[in-house]
Amino acid sequence: MIVALAGGTGAAKLLRGLVRVTEPTRLFVVGNTGDDLDWWGLRVSPDLDSVAYALAGLLDGTRGWGVRDDTFHCLEAMQRLGGDTWFRLGDRDLATHLRRTLLLRAGASLTAATRAIADALGVTARLVPMSDDPVRTELRTRGGWLSLEEFFVRERCLPDVLDVAYRGAEAARPAPDVLGAIGTAEAVVVCCSNPVTSIGPILAVPGIVDALVRTPAPVVAVSPIVGGQAVSGPAAKLLAARGLDVSPLGVARAYRPWLDALVIDRADVANAPALERDGVRPVVADALMPDHGAEARLARAVLDAVGAAA
Amino acid sequence: MIVALAGGTGAAKLLRGLVRVTEPTRLFVVGNTGDDLDWWGLRVSPDLDSVAYALAGLLDGTRGWGVRDDTFHCLEAMQRLGGDTWFRLGDRDLATHLRRTLLLRAGASLTAATRAIADALGVTARLVPMSDDPVRTELRTRGGWLSLEEFFVRERCLPDVLDVAYRGAEAARPAPDVLGAIGTAEAVVVCCSNPVTSIGPILAVPGIVDALVRTPAPVVAVSPIVGGQAVSGPAAKLLAARGLDVSPLGVARAYRPWLDALVIDRADVANAPALERDGVRPVVADALMPDHGAEARLARAVLDAVGAAA
Repeated sequence: MIVALAGGTGAAKLLRGLVRVTEPTRLFVVGNTGDDLDWWGLRVSPDLDSVAYALAGLLDGTRGWGVRDDTFHCLEAMQRLGGDTWFRLGDRDLATHLRRTLLLRAGASLTAATRAIADALGVTARLVPMSDDPVRTELRTRGGWLSLEEFFVRERCLPDVLDVAYRGAEAARPAPDVLGAIGTAEAVVVCCSNPVTSIGPILAVPGIVDALVRTPAPVVAVSPIVGGQAVSGPAAKLLAARGLDVSPLGVARAYRPWLDALVIDRADVANAPALERDGVRPVVADALMPDHGAEARLARAVLDAVGAAA
Repeated sequence: MIVALAGGTGAAKLLRGLVRVTEPTRLFVVGNTGDDLDWWGLRVSPDLDSVAYALAGLLDGTRGWGVRDDTFHCLEAMQRLGGDTWFRLGDRDLATHLRRTLLLRAGASLTAATRAIADALGVTARLVPMSDDPVRTELRTRGGWLSLEEFFVRERCLPDVLDVAYRGAEAARPAPDVLGAIGTAEAVVVCCSNPVTSIGPILAVPGIVDALVRTPAPVVAVSPIVGGQAVSGPAAKLLAARGLDVSPLGVARAYRPWLDALVIDRADVANAPALERDGVRPVVADALMPDHGAEARLARAVLDAVGAAA
């Protein structure tokens, strides 16, 4: 079993590569739920959905979120009705949130709801939330605390970030099987997601870091920072807010002391000696994924890095 | 003020005619909520919506319900996810139910939510539910009790109807202003809706029949039965289930003793003497509404019948 810790778009692409180069049922994906929000009365799990859509071949490639070629007729009608529309839900995407909300309201756990949705979409990899308990990432800005989606979508990542909190994390329990999967994994892959707002909430769930420290499995991360910039999203700003270097070194330090290897882009090969001094084995590869072929190549490099046969 | 008691499609067409021939703000429409249902976790008010969409120029003319030229992408996605899809919600229509549900959950009454939606759609006639309390029409069939929409949509009106109940009606209060509007109206119009399942639930709300009996305003109904058949829907089956004639006579008897005049189609002119014997003044007109012109002509005939100047 290969356990992957995953955020949204970047993770979705790497995971799409992984299911191309290895048996999908080997994959146990632990998804971030710190971005989850209640929107239009529905429970939305942006990262879980991005991963599920990617693995089902449904992810929109242009936007990087939502369902491919989706329409926004409900959203347009909602605008006319005076409802909030800064968070954009497509018509096909909406069905996922309606279904999840109904399942949760009927008493299902988020794990069970996620499984039902992934199964219906034909995802054969196992996809679980980091926790069935609510954890919400919030960012402190000069204007006050914002939810992740308020910062990311409504405010377009523009405000300075002064602090980060994972509300509810202290009381959250890891979802069933998460600790066991990490403990018995052949390898653990930390996807090329934002260390602070995508992987950070997963690590904030009590027990998960401890499982990463203890697991005999090699743990490899893929750097979401290439050439001093985030491949996508606000990772640079958030690493800086946490006092971490906007480089593979900062990423490695966010994952100290349990990270064994870090896949870095060829552009960052100069960071290799410093990584080694930090006790992290650098693995150089092409870390950008402009197409499906690149996703598969990076996935293969990740598996090679941990000696996991494809 | 002209008060109209309204069901869905047939009422929507007549009301669309009325706002063409008279000042829309004169209209106070009391809508049936006996068909309301919770679907995908959302509160759906099919009859209120048909009326609002018609008055906003948005009603789909082919289906007779929902938003014109709507798409069903969410529904198709929901089918893939294994959700129920026998009740069909279009993507634009869905925004109405999401908005209504949010407003209700925030503490708004159905009256307030209906007004917010109608206002946003540009409806200037006043549209109110018959009650802010839940009333649910159920039909007893050999297979057990069905909700109105289960019978109408899922079972396509095929089962024999053995009994009709308006659950919750005894405890329901008329929505604010309904009794006052009936009492002070210039005229009351009972739209050409199903007397049993569209107008029946309105009449089942305590106080409304009494207000109709007492109002000095003339009360005119439009027969939804033409030539021994329902213009649309299961009105014939339901009149028969209630032991009423499938004719304008049966309609008039459903509205005894407070009905003053009944607009009947030319095809039913032979019923005129019997109506007169029942104390109801027959008004002969073209009761079918194949196009907007016919809707306006019938609306004018209705106003003429009660001496209400257009």
